[in-house]
Amino acid sequence: MGEQTYRLTLCYDGTRYRGWQRLPNANTIQGRLESVLSEIFAQPVEVHGSGRTDAGVHAAGQVVSFHAPPMDRSKLLSQLRHKLPEDIGVLSLDYAPERFHARLSAVEKTYCYRIWNSSEPDVFRRHYRVQYPQKLDFEAMERGMSLCLGQHDFLAFCSNKHFKKTSVRCLTRFSLEREGNELTFTLTADGFLYHMVRILVGTILEIGLGQREPESIPALFASRNREEAGQTAPAKGLCLMEVCYEHSNIR
Amino acid sequence: MGEQTYRLTLCYDGTRYRGWQRLPNANTIQGRLESVLSEIFAQPVEVHGSGRTDAGVHAAGQVVSFHAPPMDRSKLLSQLRHKLPEDIGVLSLDYAPERFHARLSAVEKTYCYRIWNSSEPDVFRRHYRVQYPQKLDFEAMERGMSLCLGQHDFLAFCSNKHFKKTSVRCLTRFSLEREGNELTFTLTADGFLYHMVRILVGTILEIGLGQREPESIPALFASRNREEAGQTAPAKGLCLMEVCYEHSNIR
Repeated sequence: MGEQTYRLTLCYDGTRYRGWQRLPNANTIQGRLESVLSEIFAQPVEVHGSGRTDAGVHAAGQVVSFHAPPMDRSKLLSQLRHKLPEDIGVLSLDYAPERFHARLSAVEKTYCYRIWNSSEPDVFRRHYRVQYPQKLDFEAMERGMSLCLGQHDFLAFCSNKHFKKTSVRCLTRFSLEREGNELTFTLTADGFLYHMVRILVGTILEIGLGQREPESIPALFASRNREEAGQTAPAKGLCLMEVCYEHSNIR
Repeated sequence: MGEQTYRLTLCYDGTRYRGWQRLPNANTIQGRLESVLSEIFAQPVEVHGSGRTDAGVHAAGQVVSFHAPPMDRSKLLSQLRHKLPEDIGVLSLDYAPERFHARLSAVEKTYCYRIWNSSEPDVFRRHYRVQYPQKLDFEAMERGMSLCLGQHDFLAFCSNKHFKKTSVRCLTRFSLEREGNELTFTLTADGFLYHMVRILVGTILEIGLGQREPESIPALFASRNREEAGQTAPAKGLCLMEVCYEHSNIR
């Protein structure tokens, strides 16, 4: 009997994990998921995520594909929910077309980055927001964010120094919502380079603090030099929200 | 020089702690706070909380009093915030009248109890809400809750079998708010017995599941028998929200 392609949507609290990618002798999301699936199917199961998330980064909608023997969907879902640790949750499980691949088929991703803009303590959401008590110039930040939109070479916003493929991406959303002291940046693009969201947010925060001008953004793109951009914002503020696929998530 | 009375308002994530009360060789909120204060003042400092919270119970507004040498308020606040672990936060620090005592002066307390009423996973708030996927009869629950209001002997809702003092309390609020799948019970009284909130919520949930009738509540008060009431709901859903004092928190 042939194998079935499955599509899984996961949420996870990345705090305890060394990131998404399977590593020998390290607690990773992929490693945990593969070991549970291999146990359920009583054979090795390899999964593909839509992309890697770093240590401490969270997901509210990571998409995963894998091949395995056919199994009843609701039975598999309940076994997975039962066996996975409580910081990895299965939002949905579907059968997918044979050629579906969570990374290769993805056409768009959305991330959020959350800041707690107060000197008051934030004990209950401390793993999901970065505390930033300083006063920020939101108008300057918005100007800087709008200059990041569109198609650019984002190499200055990539931590991988040996990145060889094209570093041109199209950023279609870079917004900031404020709810009380909570700031939420939302970024959507056809793809993101290594650390791209965190460096973009770090750069915009430096603009908010008056340490750089919004109008300096175009020169950063032209420089293609990581040293010119801002600091990489801490991992824990970042959350992968949604992955879109052709013919599926039409909005 | 005389000592100063201080009043501290704390929030904490109780997940890692064996509860509020200082215990030898155990991680407790009181123990942690006293050791930090004793370090700052370079002398033993003993604190009084408005009440004990159990292992795993949280606080968004626990009030604490202590006596210590006079110290600049903002200096003490910043030292405390710096030295306390990130799951214990200081919301405010004030000088208090000499006779102020966080427990003895309290006239009213408010707790919240949170439920995640869905079979979907809840990874980000898993330590603060109890998952309850079953369908609940909210109308019956509301009827049961209203029958709990007012002055009653709550001994049936107390886990301490050897409780000797008066177990009469006046419950002035017992409400349920629903926001999507999140249910929040809010309870206000002039005082709460040991496990009283958790047993009240556990009993109301049994009404919601159709396992007991709302109209059985008055008989529970009359019974004064813990065995007659519902199960003690799990600790992690409970959060101490606010403590009111005469002449201070006038609403």
